Order: sequence, then structure tokens, then C-alpha cells
Amino acid sequence: MTNPLSADMLARMDAYWRAANYLSVGQIYLRDNPLLREKLTLDHVKPRLLGHWGTTPGLNFIYVHLNRIINERDVDMIYVTGPGHGGPGLVANTYLEGTYSEFYPEIGQDDAGLTRLVRQFSWPGGIPSHVAPETPGSINEGGELGYSLMHAYGAAFDNPDLVVACVVGDGEAETGALATSWHSNKFLNPARDGAVLPILHLNGYKIASPTVLARISHDELDALFRGYGYKPYFVEGHDPATMHQKMAATLDTVMEEIAGIQARARSGETVERPAWPMIVLRSPKGWTGPKEVDGHPTEDSWRSHQVPLAKLAEIPEHLELLDTWLRSYKAEELFDATGKLLPHLAALAPVGERRMGANPHANGGLLLKDLKLPDFRDYALPVAAPGAVMGEATRAAGAFLRDVLTLNDDVQNFRVFGPDETQSNRLGDVFEVTDRVFMGDIIETDQQLSPDGRVMEVLSEHLCQGWLEGYLLTGRHGFFSCYEAFIHVVDSMFNQHAKWLDVAKTIGWRKPVASLNYLLTSHVWRQDHNGFSHQDPGFIDHAMNKKAGVVRVYLPPDANTLLSVVDHCLRSRDYINVIVAGKQPELQWLDMEAAAAHCAVGLGVWDWASTCGEEEPDAVVACAGDVPTMEALAAVALLREQFPDIRLRVVNVVDLMTLQAPSQHPHGISDDQFDAMFTADRPVIFVHHGYPALIHRLIYRRTNHHNFHVHGFQEEGTTTTPFDMAVLNQIDRFHVAKAVVDGVRRFAHDRARFADLVAAKLAEHTEYICANGEDMPEIRDWVWPG
Amino acid sequence: MTNPLSADMLARMDAYWRAANYLSVGQIYLRDNPLLREKLTLDHVKPRLLGHWGTTPGLNFIYVHLNRIINERDVDMIYVTGPGHGGPGLVANTYLEGTYSEFYPEIGQDDAGLTRLVRQFSWPGGIPSHVAPETPGSINEGGELGYSLMHAYGAAFDNPDLVVACVVGDGEAETGALATSWHSNKFLNPARDGAVLPILHLNGYKIASPTVLARISHDELDALFRGYGYKPYFVEGHDPATMHQKMAATLDTVMEEIAGIQARARSGETVERPAWPMIVLRSPKGWTGPKEVDGHPTEDSWRSHQVPLAKLAEIPEHLELLDTWLRSYKAEELFDATGKLLPHLAALAPVGERRMGANPHANGGLLLKDLKLPDFRDYALPVAAPGAVMGEATRAAGAFLRDVLTLNDDVQNFRVFGPDETQSNRLGDVFEVTDRVFMGDIIETDQQLSPDGRVMEVLSEHLCQGWLEGYLLTGRHGFFSCYEAFIHVVDSMFNQHAKWLDVAKTIGWRKPVASLNYLLTSHVWRQDHNGFSHQDPGFIDHAMNKKAGVVRVYLPPDANTLLSVVDHCLRSRDYINVIVAGKQPELQWLDMEAAAAHCAVGLGVWDWASTCGEEEPDAVVACAGDVPTMEALAAVALLREQFPDIRLRVVNVVDLMTLQAPSQHPHGISDDQFDAMFTADRPVIFVHHGYPALIHRLIYRRTNHHNFHVHGFQEEGTTTTPFDMAVLNQIDRFHVAKAVVDGVRRFAHDRARFADLVAAKLAEHTEYICANGEDMPEIRDWVWPG
Repeated sequence: MTNPLSADMLARMDAYWRAANYLSVGQIYLRDNPLLREKLTLDHVKPRLLGHWGTTPGLNFIYVHLNRIINERDVDMIYVTGPGHGGPGLVANTYLEGTYSEFYPEIGQDDAGLTRLVRQFSWPGGIPSHVAPETPGSINEGGELGYSLMHAYGAAFDNPDLVVACVVGDGEAETGALATSWHSNKFLNPARDGAVLPILHLNGYKIASPTVLARISHDELDALFRGYGYKPYFVEGHDPATMHQKMAATLDTVMEEIAGIQARARSGETVERPAWPMIVLRSPKGWTGPKEVDGHPTEDSWRSHQVPLAKLAEIPEHLELLDTWLRSYKAEELFDATGKLLPHLAALAPVGERRMGANPHANGGLLLKDLKLPDFRDYALPVAAPGAVMGEATRAAGAFLRDVLTLNDDVQNFRVFGPDETQSNRLGDVFEVTDRVFMGDIIETDQQLSPDGRVMEVLSEHLCQGWLEGYLLTGRHGFFSCYEAFIHVVDSMFNQHAKWLDVAKTIGWRKPVASLNYLLTSHVWRQDHNGFSHQDPGFIDHAMNKKAGVVRVYLPPDANTLLSVVDHCLRSRDYINVIVAGKQPELQWLDMEAAAAHCAVGLGVWDWASTCGEEEPDAVVACAGDVPTMEALAAVALLREQFPDIRLRVVNVVDLMTLQAPSQHPHGISDDQFDAMFTADRPVIFVHHGYPALIHRLIYRRTNHHNFHVHGFQEEGTTTTPFDMAVLNQIDRFHVAKAVVDGVRRFAHDRARFADLVAAKLAEHTEYICANGEDMPEIRDWVWPG
Repeated sequence: MTNPLSADMLARMDAYWRAANYLSVGQIYLRDNPLLREKLTLDHVKPRLLGHWGTTPGLNFIYVHLNRIINERDVDMIYVTGPGHGGPGLVANTYLEGTYSEFYPEIGQDDAGLTRLVRQFSWPGGIPSHVAPETPGSINEGGELGYSLMHAYGAAFDNPDLVVACVVGDGEAETGALATSWHSNKFLNPARDGAVLPILHLNGYKIASPTVLARISHDELDALFRGYGYKPYFVEGHDPATMHQKMAATLDTVMEEIAGIQARARSGETVERPAWPMIVLRSPKGWTGPKEVDGHPTEDSWRSHQVPLAKLAEIPEHLELLDTWLRSYKAEELFDATGKLLPHLAALAPVGERRMGANPHANGGLLLKDLKLPDFRDYALPVAAPGAVMGEATRAAGAFLRDVLTLNDDVQNFRVFGPDETQSNRLGDVFEVTDRVFMGDIIETDQQLSPDGRVMEVLSEHLCQGWLEGYLLTGRHGFFSCYEAFIHVVDSMFNQHAKWLDVAKTIGWRKPVASLNYLLTSHVWRQDHNGFSHQDPGFIDHAMNKKAGVVRVYLPPDANTLLSVVDHCLRSRDYINVIVAGKQPELQWLDMEAAAAHCAVGLGVWDWASTCGEEEPDAVVACAGDVPTMEALAAVALLREQFPDIRLRVVNVVDLMTLQAPSQHPHGISDDQFDAMFTADRPVIFVHHGYPALIHRLIYRRTNHHNFHVHGFQEEGTTTTPFDMAVLNQIDRFHVAKAVVDGVRRFAHDRARFADLVAAKLAEHTEYICANGEDMPEIRDWVWPG
């Protein structure tokens, strides 16, 4: 191992590191006197000490070394911080490089700015303790662990000149999401994509105990990463001077290797999956912090995890220790009399957009280009009359997505994601113009598989979600299709992305990014073949808990409405759009003109299905979702047959948010509109795609809410027939029709008769399916009588 | 490699395998004529073909080989099926070994039984297509992939004589949950626990494309598993006879190794973590199925994933191919004239409880022993009067759990699980009697860490959940504490476990198991220091979507109520209990007698806080959760001070389910009780721990529901002070008191004055925290005036 750093460079880099460490400790502890120009007293210390020291010095160490690499090699690099609890370190570094003061001019490069810098941290009205949207240069919130490496890969796709340095914490490395993220290298094409440089930071401990990867043998660790397809480099030690040389030498080596891999791949040689370099940095937790506190080892121990010195008011010795600790960094050698970093140190930082805090890839909205979209109307299924034809909604969407891929092929800023289900979810037309991307071995019989594909399939909803998040936050577009039940795998990632968007929208310098678009298909009502485990419509409930400003939920009832919704979602910014639509052949209701108009409003009366004309209806039959719409209409058809004078109004809801009060969601229609549509006092039989409680919670402020009878998924499922799924949960035409009759006073004398009819129909159904294993022809072949 | 199987044994094992394959294909395709005694016609074929062939022959292959091992070595073994879509294989094998007919006598060992066996599969009223609770021998639902290996480890803990054979699919292996599961070997103690034998089944393909692990080099694959700490054995090939010998030889070897590891660990030698053997079985997908269909390769291709031959009615050639395929197994050499498996083949199966379908570990309720519980009243915090003392609720629970550990130490059937948070969640008293279990390297400075610990900590909610599920389903007890926000990581696992319990309760032969108990702490209201990413109370909403029969949610307001709830949950069976309780010092409200009585009912009027006596109140102040309870009471105190004649009723809710209509949940109180408590027409200001919508959806059928004003989490969060979190979301005393005044008609003339008072208080609060970084002393030190 050579020592690439000159004595001067070594001294300056170490000083820069000390400055970052100093400001990190300062942020955790100080509310004033940031450069200790006065003797440290309790008045200078925050009353509540909040923050995480343990991981911070390592993050700072890496940062200064990456700065050197960026400068020496003019690298376009961003920094993804897995151990994002070390927020002070990222704030300190982006401050030292000048970015922070540009984004937040009140935090200037002087004593006053430094005072504000240290004070704002973990302070009401200030900044969060973790890496967050507020942190320049970040695309990865540091609170919930596990998603750094997938975000890093997402950022690198289609960014050939970008190097994404990704620090992976050894705590984080225990999560499932992170454990499978290492395999992302099987999906990164060195000819087309940028590089990810994973730096596993083995600082040994979590909150209270050692980490797994820090306590396996070197051989196992080495084998693990070779097995994951990397070439691991180990930088291990404790002594700063030695570690600086090791880290610098290693970074030189790995950057050469990355350059070599890319040059070979881009020279026209056959693209093969290389063993990408990665670094294992083993350094002490709380490095340079107090060696011992109250007789307990602290540096290199879990006791450094948060605030190594607490209760400063109660234990005067701790205040002294803090003073000693802070002064050990020798701030007087780092900052001038005005509080500005000395020029020979400031010179270590890159300049302009090469600073990792200012790199536009980490503020992707700056780079975002609108997608070129074909006219979705060109993909219309011809629907001469409602219910006149059958169609597969997602297949129509697939044709549209195919052409989105083609139109944006020159910019290479759109990808389709899904856990091995793009074809099965009937989006397969995309394979006319692209493949699944794969850097594993490809054999002769493989189809639609290549290193150049733009469809990202892996049997991990985590990876799909995380890659897509990274791709979007760096200014690109994407579309994620998933089995409805299994999108719950990423509930918590959805939460964190929603929180990110919610906060990012309040930060002036963060520019809008493309929305995260989900298509949930293979949904609850058509997983009759896969059974109970595959039947769960709860994700939309989960989504609706997040802020109205960032979440949208759409339930298009057929192909043309789906096309309109997909087009709308691909144009939107800063949202999470959840679209639920089936892939099976279904009756089609609206021609494209009607579909577009219907989706523009989000809900509406379907006059062609209603029987009340201008009159007040006996009952409203409302529906949301494709199968519920079909069953609701079949119920209406049955009711028309049985009660020729019945006055029914049929309402279809595409945009669930329209049901909410306008005070709760911007899409919410006014109370007057709501009352006009749903009446003030008539029974509303609402056939819903998901759990009934969702509709109740959306409408509880509406006038007529006590007359809503919601039929939806009641958590009754198994392997059975499609129609039987509806029956088990009482969203079928018979139960719905009966609910209407039960609700209409003037049919009171008919209720018993109709109940008998329904009971007979249901018994016939049950008998038939048990004997034949499929639905009755009159159900399978049912068509809207028009 | 030796050939351990004699020619006779090889022939018989191959025949047994053919029988299993035959019955598997039969289940997927046939509704009649199961032994093809008649010419196969369309009448014998199911009209809808549902099922997954691809993985099934491999599962069958492994099963017959494990049967040999069980017999030759008298091994206590269960079979965990990761690729659980291969349900037909497990049904076939448990049928062949006789278990199936014992559990389901109508499926006898004859022609009639065989007819029912094939017909019931994926048939309405029959059985699901995946491995499911209905499948004998299973503890792992095969629908949602990724949890097999964690379930296997959960089963092996504290079962020293058990070997858990776990087939991991190569699709499943791409999930995050599975990718981190391999590290479970760092938590399994060979001296105390049983063995897990992972068998990675590389059959190469998912639904439509190759798997990652099937397309990396042998060297990488080998390194990966060595890196994970295993010793991999490769069984690879295509030719059945060769593969039988290889598999048999490999199983002999690995069973010897397992025995050796256990013998060394149990001989009193120092326990070290061994490199456990595992097997990589590379066999063709759809092995023994059609080589080619319609000119496309089918065996050894993703085209074998589900039903290789479809549209039998439309394509006569496919029916012929099916006939050829079925006859290739030579059923006439396998079953006698009555449809019974021939004796020389039946003799290959183990007998009695050694059959994997009949092993009691896979029906854990059979083995379940009640926990010995100390009297929870002995852990009471003395509460002389409501609000008279402070206490940490979870600390009290920790003392109780400590003694649960001690009392059941002889049986070794209770463990505590959590992602590195047991101490931080203040359950640390458990470390007086046990350690964290760890089989990684332990160094001198480590504390509370040993191979014998009963606290399972790993920074993976997935592993905690999966291990616990495996532990419970094999008849033991556990307790899982977690940060409230991050339990969403396992939303989908929760779903699947809830579905499992829901179905298992309907199966006569499955015996009740211990409930899965969550303690969600470090909750939304006290993550002021960690910020927005850590603030999410949505898991209880998620939980409430599942069946009323399996889900319970408790929000104890203080330590003594928490103790009562924990005691109750540890005694319960077949539920998922979600307990939410804070760890921070809080005012204590109820002495133990009152707490136990309160929890027994689940909600109640707190007369000591109410001011209405026997009179009808002006308003009801209701609360659920510890911080909401404190703020509600503080609001009441403020109102009493400002409006001495105000008549308030205070209701505290511990068991959220009591609010639901009794038709929706068995805990729901009657409408009369509800009306008596919440009145028919007075305003109810409900201060709720979580999202307000949850309360609205629970009570929408109640008389007075339109007068409920729910204050809860509005997704407003950041790093701030505890009280500011309440203010941001308007659950603080001032907003609550104002809501009461706004709701009471006779205070209409006071509203403006009171609004001014509240505005002034809130402004003072904001000013104070921004200046001082902590809450005002009058808030921090607030006590209930009694």
C-alpha cells in the first residue's frame, strides 16, 4: 500500500476532517459560543441533547476523502448516507464546502452563521437530527434504515457519468431491504449507467449491541461480498494518519477500477458484468470522541451511539469533558477570527456543482425533463356503447407505455418497474421496444432479456420501490406495476417517500420531481386462483393516511379511464399516485371522450345506467373499481328487470379523494355538489373495491353519510371463482340489488320476495361452482342490457 | 461421490417420486379419472386450470429424500416450503404418507379418495392452490414469498432435537426478507437449538424470467453462502437416477455434519458458531414435465411456472400431451387396483409422528404449554391518587417480562424479540436474568450478550417477526417490542400471519397457538427528537383491517394498565395483540385495582376526572393512548379552572375494539352502553393516539357519531419538543379545551374569550420553545390538580 497523500495534504485533510467533526459535536451540544471563544458554560449548551454522534466521524472521514477524489479526477459524484442519523456530519460538510450557506443564507460563513448553524440542529423551528430533505445533497432520509443502496443504484441508472458513493451502515446492513440491495449490480450496465461505490461502514455497534457484519470473520466478510459480485477493499484501523493514507490509496484504486470497467464496457467490447469494487471501512464508533465516560469505554462502543456525554447540568465533570473534547479538534487552527474556515482548508472542497451538497442530481427537479407523451386517446378501445365490448385495461396501458418508452428513448429517462410481473400484468407490449434489463448470465433460450432493457424486474418489491425512488429523486420518471396484495411489502417505504415529498415541497430550493406512480393490478377480486394470501386491497387505506398534498388514489373502471389516469399521473409532480386496475378481460363502459371527461372530474353520474332521469332517485348505486362497477351495473340491470319503475342513480368514482370534504383534500367536491349527486336522504349503496371502512371515513362529514351502505372486501377469501369472491364479500350483483331493495321504503312489501329470489340465485351459484369449478355461464357471459 | 442408494432403493424412491409428481399433475388438471383407468377426455379435466407445476417436482424430489433420511436416522424433521405455490406437491406427499387421509378422512387411500383429492385442488369449496394452513405439516403459507427461512429458524430455536428442512426458492431468494434471513445462523446456538437445513432450490426461473441466483457463477454462489456462514453442497443435474444418488449422498453427508456440530456443542466444548451445511439443488423447472409445447421449450423454462398445457378444449393436441405426460409416470406401477399406493412404496414413508405431515411441531398448538405467569399486580406502580406519581410504563412491563423469563426458564418456551431496542424501549430489566443471544464473535467489553440469551435482537423487523411467527407456530410464546413507526416494515407479514390464524381457526385438527404480541413503543408522540421519519401511528389502522376474530388493539394509558394488558395478551391464543404504550416518564392515573378493572371492561368513565356527577354532561372528553390521556386531562383541568360549573365526562379507552358495533367486533359494547357513556347528542371531543379517521370508522354506526370531534395525528411532524408535537397536531390541552368550549352551546358567549386565551398560550409556547429548545416548565412539570 502506497501513501498517496503528501504530508501537507494529509495535514490539511485531517484538519478538514477535524473541522467537520468539531461542527458536528457543536451541533449536538451547543446553542452558543460555537468556536469556544469564551469559556464553555452550561449557558452555551442545549438543554435537551439530541443527535447521533457515533456514526458521524466516519461519515465525515469519507466525505473529505471523496472531496479529494472529486477534485483530483473531476468526478460527478453524490453522497448517499445510509447511516442518516449522522445528520450533523452532512450538515457540517455541506456548510464547510459553502453549499449550506448558499441554500440557507442566514447560516453564513462567520461567527453569527456558526451560532445559528449549531443552534438550529434538533431545535424547534430548526432542522431535523437526521439527514433529511432539508439537507443539501441528500436523496435518502436517514431515519428509517435500509434503503440507501437501492436509492444509490436508482440514482446511477441512466446517469453514465455519475458516481454514487453510498455509505451503508452496518446496522442498516442487517435489514432485509439492504441485504438484497447488494444484488442490484446484476441490473446495472456499465456501458449505459453510472457507478455505485458502496462503502460499508463497520463501526461495530447499533444502539446497544454489536452488529452482525462486524462480528464475522474477515474471510466470511470477504466471501460475502465476492459472492454478491463485488471486489471488496478493506480499510481498517484507528490511527487517523494511517487511515487517511489507506483510505486515499484505496479510493485511488477503486476509482481507477471503475474508470477501467466503464472504459471497457463503453469501448464496444461485449458487456459483461464486472466485479465492481466496494470498500469496507472499519473504524471506531464515535471515533475521536471521549475514550471513556464515567469509567465506561465510549469511543469504539455502542455508548457513542447518540450523545456520549449527557446530564451536563447535573454532572459538572461531563461539561469539562465536553470542553476538552471540543478543544481537541483545535478549532483555532481551522477557523479565522471571523469564524470562516481558513482558505487552505476551504480549498480542499470541490467548487460549484462538483460539491456533493450542490450536485444537481441530488435535487433532481433541477434536471427533470417532461416526458414526451403520445396522445393517450390514440390508444382508446373503441366502445360503441357501454358494455358493448370486452377489453383488458392494463393491456391498453401497456401499449401506451410502450410508446412512452420509444418517445423518450433519446433522453433515457423513463423506466418500468415490477417484481417479475410486467408480462403477467399484461403490460407486455413494452417488450416490443425494450427488454428486461439483466446483467446476469443470459442464455440462448432467454427472451426479452438484455443489458440494455428498460424494464426492471426483480422479485423484490423493496428493490423496485427503492430503485424507482432513487431514479425519481434524481430527476427521471417511472412506473411501477405490482400485485395489489404484495405492495404492502413496501408500506414503510411508501411512508418515508410520502414524508420526503411532503417536506421537500416546503423547501424552496428543492424543485418538483416526477410523481411515483403505482399500478396495482392482479387485484383482490381477480386473485380467485391464487387464494387468500393474494387478496388484500388495504394499500389504498394505508396511502390515504398520508398528507392530502402528496397522495392520489384512482380506481378507473375500464381501459379508457385507465389510459386517461395513467396519462395524468405521468404528467404530475411531487405526488404518489396509486392506480388500481384489473388485468382480466372486463366489460368496457366509456368511450374515450366520455372517459377523459369522467376522469377530469373524478366522479360522476352515469346517466346511461341511471333510471331516475331528472327525478330524485329511490336510491343511489355508487361504485369504485372495475369489478365493483360491473357488479353494481349488473345489480342495476337486475333491479330494472324486477322493478320497472325503480328510480336509480348510478355514480361511478374514479378519484377516491373527491369523496372527502374539500377541507380535507383539494380534490374533494363541495358539499353542495356531493348532496346533489348522493342526495341528502336517499340510501346510497356503495360498491367499493377495498375495505368498506375507507368509504365511511372519507364521507363522514357529508350530509347523507348515515345512509351510505358500503359493500367491499370483508377479508373473506380463498381459492375459488371470480364471481364467488364477490359473493363471499357481498359485493356481487345479488347482494347489492338486495341492499337497494332493503333500503327503498316503497319496495318494503317486495323485500321478502326479492330476498327469496336472491337467496335462490346464490344457492344456485354455490351449487354450480362446487359441481363445475367455474362460474355459471349467465355470470361469465353477462352483458349490460344497454 | 459414492452412490449410497441400492438399485432397489433407487428404483423405489424414483417410483415414489413419480407417484408424487403424478398426483401433483393430477391435482392441477383432473376432476375425475385420477388413475387414467379410462381414456382421458375433456370431461375428466377441470374447466379452469389453476396451479403451479414448475417448482413442484423439485419439492417432491426433496420430500422423498428427506423421508429416507428420517427413516434411516430416526430424525425429528419438519419441512418448510418456501416455494409454496407448489402446493400440489405437499398435498401429494402428505397423501402418499397417509397423513392427509388421517386429517381428511373423506380423502381415503382408494379410487374414490383419489378422485376427491385431485378434484378438490383449486376448486370452489376445496383447497387453496398454495401450501396453506389446510396443508398438513406446514407452518409457512406459500403465497407471499420470502419468509420461509426465518420461519424455519423460529421453529428450530429451543427445539434441540428438531431438524427443519427449509426449501428456499430462487425467486423467493431475491426478496429482502429472505436475503437477510441467511444471517439467522448468527442467532442459533447448536447446544440449545435445533438445526436448520436450507435447501436452495435453483430451478432457474420466476414467472417470466430467470432468477438472479441461477445466473451468477458457481464461484460467486459458493462464496455468497460461505460469506453467509454456511458450507454449501451442490446437487446439480437433470438425469433422475444420477440426481437421486447425488442427493442421497449429499443428505447423508450434511446430516452427519449436523450431528457432529451438535455433538461437539453439547459435549461441553466451548460453543462456537459452526459453518452449518446447506444444499444448493439445481434442477430443471418443471422437471419431468413436457419438454416442449407448441414449439417452445417448456421443461427447464419459465413456461413451466404455472400450467404448461392450457386451453385443452381448444387445442386437442394439448389433451394428448397431457395424457402422455401423465402416463409417463406409469401410475399402474405405483397404485394397486383399488387406488392404494403399493406397499413396497408406502414403506418408504416414515411412520406416525415422524411423517413430516404429522409432525406435531407443525401443528404447534399440540405442544403448547401455558406460560407460567407471575401475578402482574405484584409489579404495580403505587398510585396513591390519579396523577400523583410519574412512572415509565414499559419499565414496569420489563420487570414483569423478566420474571416471565425466569419462571419459564425450565421449559425454554418464551423469548423476547426486538430490533436492538429492548434496552432503549426500557424493557431492560430482562437483562437481569438473560442476555441477547449472539453467535457472532463476542469480545471482552460486550455486555448482556451470549449464545444462551433469550432476547433476540437484530436490526431487521422482518427477522424479528419471522422468527417469532416460526416460534409461535411451533407451540411457544413470545413478545415483540418495536418502534411504532417502523413496525410498518412488516405490514405484509402481519397480513399473512393474520390470514393464517383466521384460516387455521377453522381447521379442526389445528390447535390454538399463542398470540403474536406487539408492544409498539417509542411512539409517535415521543419521537420529537428523531423527527418526522419516526412519527407514524398507522399500524393500528392497518391491523384493524384484518378480521375481528384475530386482531386486538390496546392503548393502555399508564403503567398499571399496561401490566394488566400484557398479562392478558400473554394468556391469549390465536390473536395478534397490538399494544401501544410509551416508554417515557409519564403521570400515572390508576392504581392496580382500578387498572385491572378498567382493562377488564376495555373502556370506562373516569369519575374522578369527570365533573358531571350523575347529570348529563355538557360534553364528553374521551381519550385513547398515554399522551392523549394526559393532554385530555390537562384540558379538563384547564376547563374546570375557567368554567367552574362545566359538566364534563371523561372516558378513557384502552381497548379500541370496544368502540365498534358488536356486530363488527366481539369486544364492541352494546349501543345502549355506548349511548349511556357517550350520550346521544352531546359533543364528544375524542383525543386519539393515531390518525383521527380510525375513530370515525369505528363509531360510524353509533347514535352520536356525528358529534364526535376527533383530535389525533395529522401527519404533522418534525424534530421538536414533546409538547410541540401535540400542538402541531392539535391534540394538546389548549386545542382540546377550545374544541370543548366550541362544542358546548351554553358557553357560546365565552368562545371568543377562550379562543384568545388559547391563542395566547400557544403563542407563548412557540416563543418559549424557539428561544429555549425545550418545553415550558409549566408544561413539563404539569400535574393533575386532583
